[in-house]
Amino acid sequence: MTVWISRRPDAEVAAELKRSQGPLAGVRLAVKDNVDAAGLPTTAACPEFAYRPHRDAAVVAALRAAGAVVVGKTNLDQFATGLVGTRSPYGAVPDSRRPEFISGGSSSGSAVAVATGEADIAIGTDTAGSGRVPAGLQGIVGVKPTVGVISTDGVVPACESYDCVTIFAPNLELANLAMGVMAAGARAREWPSDVRLAAPPSPVVAVPNELPELDRDWRAAFDAAVGRLTAAGARIVTVDIAPFLAAAKLLYEGALVSERYAAVGEFIDAHPDAALDPTVRRIISAARDIPAHRLVRDRREVDRQRSVAMGALDGVDALVVPTAPMHPRIDEVAADPVGVNSRMGTYTNFCNLFDLCAVAAPSGTAGQAQFGITVLARAFEDAVALDVAALVTGDQAPVDVWPLAVADSVDLVVFGAHLRGGPLVHQLIDLGARWAGEVTTAPHYRMSVLPTVPAKPAITRMPDGAAGTALLGHRWLLSPAALGRFLAALPAPMQLGKVEFDDGTWRTAFGCDGAAATGPDISAYGSWPAAVAAGAV
Amino acid sequence: MTVWISRRPDAEVAAELKRSQGPLAGVRLAVKDNVDAAGLPTTAACPEFAYRPHRDAAVVAALRAAGAVVVGKTNLDQFATGLVGTRSPYGAVPDSRRPEFISGGSSSGSAVAVATGEADIAIGTDTAGSGRVPAGLQGIVGVKPTVGVISTDGVVPACESYDCVTIFAPNLELANLAMGVMAAGARAREWPSDVRLAAPPSPVVAVPNELPELDRDWRAAFDAAVGRLTAAGARIVTVDIAPFLAAAKLLYEGALVSERYAAVGEFIDAHPDAALDPTVRRIISAARDIPAHRLVRDRREVDRQRSVAMGALDGVDALVVPTAPMHPRIDEVAADPVGVNSRMGTYTNFCNLFDLCAVAAPSGTAGQAQFGITVLARAFEDAVALDVAALVTGDQAPVDVWPLAVADSVDLVVFGAHLRGGPLVHQLIDLGARWAGEVTTAPHYRMSVLPTVPAKPAITRMPDGAAGTALLGHRWLLSPAALGRFLAALPAPMQLGKVEFDDGTWRTAFGCDGAAATGPDISAYGSWPAAVAAGAV
Repeated sequence: MTVWISRRPDAEVAAELKRSQGPLAGVRLAVKDNVDAAGLPTTAACPEFAYRPHRDAAVVAALRAAGAVVVGKTNLDQFATGLVGTRSPYGAVPDSRRPEFISGGSSSGSAVAVATGEADIAIGTDTAGSGRVPAGLQGIVGVKPTVGVISTDGVVPACESYDCVTIFAPNLELANLAMGVMAAGARAREWPSDVRLAAPPSPVVAVPNELPELDRDWRAAFDAAVGRLTAAGARIVTVDIAPFLAAAKLLYEGALVSERYAAVGEFIDAHPDAALDPTVRRIISAARDIPAHRLVRDRREVDRQRSVAMGALDGVDALVVPTAPMHPRIDEVAADPVGVNSRMGTYTNFCNLFDLCAVAAPSGTAGQAQFGITVLARAFEDAVALDVAALVTGDQAPVDVWPLAVADSVDLVVFGAHLRGGPLVHQLIDLGARWAGEVTTAPHYRMSVLPTVPAKPAITRMPDGAAGTALLGHRWLLSPAALGRFLAALPAPMQLGKVEFDDGTWRTAFGCDGAAATGPDISAYGSWPAAVAAGAV
Repeated sequence: MTVWISRRPDAEVAAELKRSQGPLAGVRLAVKDNVDAAGLPTTAACPEFAYRPHRDAAVVAALRAAGAVVVGKTNLDQFATGLVGTRSPYGAVPDSRRPEFISGGSSSGSAVAVATGEADIAIGTDTAGSGRVPAGLQGIVGVKPTVGVISTDGVVPACESYDCVTIFAPNLELANLAMGVMAAGARAREWPSDVRLAAPPSPVVAVPNELPELDRDWRAAFDAAVGRLTAAGARIVTVDIAPFLAAAKLLYEGALVSERYAAVGEFIDAHPDAALDPTVRRIISAARDIPAHRLVRDRREVDRQRSVAMGALDGVDALVVPTAPMHPRIDEVAADPVGVNSRMGTYTNFCNLFDLCAVAAPSGTAGQAQFGITVLARAFEDAVALDVAALVTGDQAPVDVWPLAVADSVDLVVFGAHLRGGPLVHQLIDLGARWAGEVTTAPHYRMSVLPTVPAKPAITRMPDGAAGTALLGHRWLLSPAALGRFLAALPAPMQLGKVEFDDGTWRTAFGCDGAAATGPDISAYGSWPAAVAAGAV
C-alpha cells in the first residue's frame, strides 16, 4: 500500500478519536508527508531527507486543537514536484477506483486516503495544482486558499513564494469547516478590510474560450458542469485562456523553478546516492545555474501576463475550468514523465502565480474517469469561489464560510428594501455582503411607512416604558469597508445605529431620522414583507 | 554647469509658464534624466544609452497637465546607481552651497536645481535613497511615496521592484501639492480601503537606539530635531536599528543587485566602449552571474528582517532617522567611491525593501552642513509621514494631504464628543481620521442633550415646515473601513446618516434615535461647545 509513508498505531488513533473534542471531534486527518506532525517523521518522499519534527506544523496544530486526530503521513510526488503521484521512491500511488491509473499529485496519498475513506480530511500542499489535480481525479473536494493566508510554518518548501497548504474532504461542508479551523489557527498574510464575503446569487462566471487537452468525453463533462451553473442562475461569459496558459509555462520552463533549488537543491547536490526520483532530480538540479537576472525578468513577465489575465476577468466573479484535462494511466506517465505532467497542469499552473484562490469540486464523470471542475477567484475572494463551487455541486453553500473565521466582518440588520429579495438588496450584494439569517428585535420597536420611493420602513425605538413590537429583519455580514461605503451612500432619512435583539444583543441596523417617521404605524404586521403582503404599504 | 544634461530654451519655457493653467500653473519642473519627457532625450547619464522618447513618463504628463512646465533634464548618478552625485560622465554635481562637497545622489541635479531656485519642483527617483539623501544635503524636502503607488511608466528601471518616483520641493506644502497631482494622474498599486489619513496629534515616534556614522555635530543636530518633535507633542521611543541596517546591506551586497543587471546589464555588456562610470559598470556587471537561487534566499532574508523590524515598530506611528549621516567632499568620494557611498545609505537603504514610505525634511545645520531628517511610516501611511515631518519643520501640515487625491475617503461630521478636543476624539484619531475643518448645517436642525456619559448632543432634523437651527460641527475624513468600524462600535442611541449643510451638500453625520432626543433643547447655542461653555449642559 503506497498511500501512507507512516501511520500511527490503530489503537492509539482510536483512543484519541474517542476522547477528541471540538468542532472537528472524531475527524480522522491524513497529513501529506511534507508537513510536520510531531511524533512522525517528515520525509517529503525522500528517505534520506527525513527528519523527526519536534513540533506540529502550524496547520496540523490548529486542526489537532480543534479535535482532528492525525492518522498518518501520506505519500507524495517527491518534494511536492509533480502532478502525477508516481514520482516517489515509496511507490506510485494508484487511483482509488482504477489501480492502473494515476492518483494525481503531488498530494497523491492525501487525496486517495480521503477518496477511500481511510481519512475524513487530509492536508495537502499546492504550488502548481497539487491540491487540486488529485482532488479532481479522486472525485473529492480540494480547497486551495489565497496564497499566504495560511501559515506554511512546518511545511517543506517547494517553491516558497507560491506554496499553499490545502484541504481535501469528501464535500464542501467538511472542507469549509476544516479550512476555517486551519485559517484561524495558522494565519499569516493579513486579510484586507474590503473582502467580499459572498458570491452574488447570480454570479458572472467565465469559462475558457478554448479547452486544450480535453477529449470529447471530458468536454461533455465540462459542458454539463457549465449547464448546471447556468441552471443555478450564473451568467456565463467566455475568456481568452491564452494569458493563463502562457504564465503556466513559466512555472516550470522558466527561472521560477530556481525557487525549488533554493528549497532543496543543496540537499540534492550533497546526496548523490539518495533515493531521488530521476525526473525530480533533473528538474531541481537544472535550476542551480539559472542566473538571477532571468528570474527577475520572468517574474516581471508573470506580472505582465497577470495584468492581462486579470483585465480579462473585469466584471467577472469567478473563472471555472476543468481541474485536470485527462486521467492518464501509470504506464503513460512512465513513458513520458515530463510531457504528461505538464499537460496535467494546464488548468492549474497559473493559479498561484496570478494570486488566485481556488476550489476543486467533483462534477460527475468523463467516461470511466471522475471529472472535476475548479472555481478560481481573486485573492481573498475565497468565499466567492466556495459559493460558486456550491452552485456546481448543488450543495447549499455554508453560511459560516471559512474566511469569516479570519477576515474582519461586521453586522448590518435590515428590515425593508434590503431584505433578501428586496428591491435594493443589490446594494449589499455588490459590496460582497453575506446573508446570515433572520433575526428578531427586542419588543421595543415600532415600524412605520416612510414616504420614500421605493417605500421603506422606518424602525424607531419606543420611548422607555412604552409598549413596542418585536420586528423581523435579515442579518447581513459585510467587510468594514463595505459597511462604510454603504453608509456613505445611504440617503436621508435612513440612519444606521444599534438596535436591540431578542437574544439581548445590540447589532448595527437600520434606523431613521425621527422627524421622518410620521407615516402609518405597521408594527402589528411584525415585518415589512407581512405588511406588504397584507396591502398595508 | 553639471546640474543639467539638457535644457529647454528659456524663451520657450517662459512662454509656457505664462500661459500655464491649473493647480501647478507657473511652477517650473526639473526632471531627472532617467524619466522621459517628450522632446528631450533620456540619457540616464550615459550618452550611448540615450533615446528620444515620444511620450512623457506618466508622472511628467500628470504634472504638465496640472500646469507645471518642464525646464530641463537633470544629471544623476549613472543609471541611478549611487547616492553621491559624482558618478556621471556629465560631471559630478557639486553641492549648491559648498562646491567642493557632493550634492548627494542619485537625483543630484534635481535636488540642486530646487536648492538653487532654478526649478520650483523636481522629479527624482529613489531605490536606495536617491530621492532623500540629496534632499537632506541640499536642505530641501524630498517625498518618497510608498513603493508602487505612483506609476513608473516611462522611467528607466534601476532595481524595478523597489524603484519609486519622488518629488523635491523647497517646502512640504509645495511638495504635497505636486505629489497629489502626480499620484492622481499616474496611479499604479491600489490603495487599501483602511488607509490612515493622518498622524495622531501626539504621535509615537521611534528613533534609533544607536546612530552609526554620525559625528558629534550631526548627533547634536539630530537631537535638536527630536527635541522639536517632543516639544510638538510627540512621544519618543527608541527602536533597535540593527534589523534595518542588516537589510540595507542586502541591497547592494547581496543578490538583489541582479535587478540592476536585468535593467541595463545587457546594454552595458554590449557597449564596452560606452562612457560608463567605472564604479557603476563594476556593480552592474558583477551582478550578471549571481544565481537565481541566491536571489530567492536573499529576498526571503529581506522578508525575515522586515518582519523583525516591523515588529519593533508595533504601536509606533513613525520612525525618524537622520537622512544622511555626513556630508563628504567630492575628493573623499573619489578616494573611496564604494565605501563612502555605502555609508551615505545607512539610513535610507532599508526603506523601500521594507515597503515604507518616507518624507525627508530639512532640520537645521550640522556644523557647516545642511542637516535633514527622514520620517518613515508604513506602506500607504504617507499622510502620517507628512504630518510628522511637519512637526519637525514647524510647518502647518496640509489639510489636503496628497493621499486624499487617490485613497478612498468618506466624510463624517460630528457635533459633540468627537469634535477636535472632545473627550471621544481618540476614537477617530485611532482610526486615522483627518480633521477637515468646521462645517455648519442647513437651518433645519435641533440640538438637545442626551442623558449619556459623557453627555452628548442629539442632532435631529425638524419636521418639514418647522423652524430649525444651523448647527456647527467638525468634518473628518476617514477610510471606508474606518467609518465601518466606527459605526460597528457606536453605541445606542447614536446613529449615523445624512445631514444637510449650509452649502447644500448632504454629508454623513451624527444623528440619533428619535425616542432618545427628549433632553433640554440647546439649539440656540449653535454648537455643543458653546452650550457647554454657557453651562447649558
